[in-house]
Amino acid sequence: MKIYDRAGFPNPSRIRIVLAEKGVESQIEFVSVDLIAAEHKQSAFLLKNVSGVVPILELDDGTFLAECTAITEYLDNLDGNPTLTGRTPLEKGLIHMMQKRADNMLIDNIGIFFHHGTPGLGSALEAHKSPEWAHRKEWGLRHRELAIEGLRYFDDVLATRPYVAGGTFSMADITVFAALLFAGAAGIEIPDGCAALKAWHARVSELPSVKNRSGQNLEAEDLRRLGF
Amino acid sequence: MKIYDRAGFPNPSRIRIVLAEKGVESQIEFVSVDLIAAEHKQSAFLLKNVSGVVPILELDDGTFLAECTAITEYLDNLDGNPTLTGRTPLEKGLIHMMQKRADNMLIDNIGIFFHHGTPGLGSALEAHKSPEWAHRKEWGLRHRELAIEGLRYFDDVLATRPYVAGGTFSMADITVFAALLFAGAAGIEIPDGCAALKAWHARVSELPSVKNRSGQNLEAEDLRRLGF
Ligand SMILES: N[C@@H](CCC(=O)N[C@@H](CS)C(=O)NCC(=O)O)C(=O)O
Ligand SMILES: N[C@@H](CCC(=O)N[C@@H](CS)C(=O)NCC(=O)O)C(=O)O
Repeated sequence: MKIYDRAGFPNPSRIRIVLAEKGVESQIEFVSVDLIAAEHKQSAFLLKNVSGVVPILELDDGTFLAECTAITEYLDNLDGNPTLTGRTPLEKGLIHMMQKRADNMLIDNIGIFFHHGTPGLGSALEAHKSPEWAHRKEWGLRHRELAIEGLRYFDDVLATRPYVAGGTFSMADITVFAALLFAGAAGIEIPDGCAALKAWHARVSELPSVKNRSGQNLEAEDLRRLGF
Repeated sequence: MKIYDRAGFPNPSRIRIVLAEKGVESQIEFVSVDLIAAEHKQSAFLLKNVSGVVPILELDDGTFLAECTAITEYLDNLDGNPTLTGRTPLEKGLIHMMQKRADNMLIDNIGIFFHHGTPGLGSALEAHKSPEWAHRKEWGLRHRELAIEGLRYFDDVLATRPYVAGGTFSMADITVFAALLFAGAAGIEIPDGCAALKAWHARVSELPSVKNRSGQNLEAEDLRRLGF
């Protein structure tokens, strides 16, 4: 199997964590896609994923799977022992509900802030992202507020249970974790007072599938190009 | 089990079709939520679903599930015979990929056009939807174009296979079907030349779970209030 992605970016990190949780990293060939140069908006990549985003998974027969939820469902069920997407109907329902909330309330809002309220990934990519009608700055700032509301919501949730969708670590935790990675890159901090979210974040950061994985850090080249 | 929804609206129709496919309609008590009066934006409803949208499912123990994907995963797996969300890892992956594309490319874009480019559901609800920064009309029209691009994408897909995610009817077909219901209400037609999408639509409209279900038509009261 091949994964097309870029180390250290938030959605790629979701799948890197899934691969580590499932213990299948060694079966994967990673193909690096230059996001800062907008390689994923060129026709060669769009033929693999019409949506023009990473990560994507290529199976040995040439089938492509895009979308983190879909790739996670595939990988998690391969061994007949789904640990991240739920075993019972209720677990599956709760995980997919919280997964969708994490995408809608966090990743989507942070993304709009990052691409419309900050310099984002720079001009090569942002040219694909900034149609004339977007009120860049205000639009971005409004979504920053929405993202912060989302963080407060997940703090409320995590004050009542150990993991985002219940008693065990799941796909929904991975999405919230990646959202916090993205929030950090966009300059959004966990708000003061969100003690449960902070404690959960510290705990999840120590999981073996998460801790010290170079695939979750940006490459030196990308850091330099982004001006860090 | 209880479903909180409103007959004839697109996302509620997704779950009405799931219930019919699974043969569990008779186990459900339907609770009608007055969307035109913005009942789903009041605190009583927000306590059930923080996102303020229908449908939601209430289990007999008082647990709430929101988000059509989550409700579908729950209902489809209850009998141990998932027919809509996939049996094999690859089926699950492809269905979730196409499901997410149908949400992103169709439902989300049609929704922005409907709420920002047309009178939508009227002033009581739209007050919750129209922040100052949205360029209402242009913003709406741009998303109308994106929705039409999405329809052309699904036409391309359906030219290569009988159903949206492969050889059998799935959650992804239900989402595309509901999107076409929504598109129709918003005045967006299937573009000329999309023969495969039209043929698929005619075929799906005749399925027993879809055909002649009053729950998929708007109530007379709502039609009147919307000025039809
Ligand atoms: N819904 C997608 C989101 C993927 C996504 O947005 N990936 C980012 C990288 S973190 C990307 O490709 N961004 C580039 C862009 O939006 O142009 C998923 O779940 O995979
Ligand atoms: N992502 C949600 C979407 C639900 C949704 O947007 N439902 C519409 C009815 S078709 C709604 O409640 N709209 C009212 C609103 O957005 O205020 C899901 O999958 O259930």
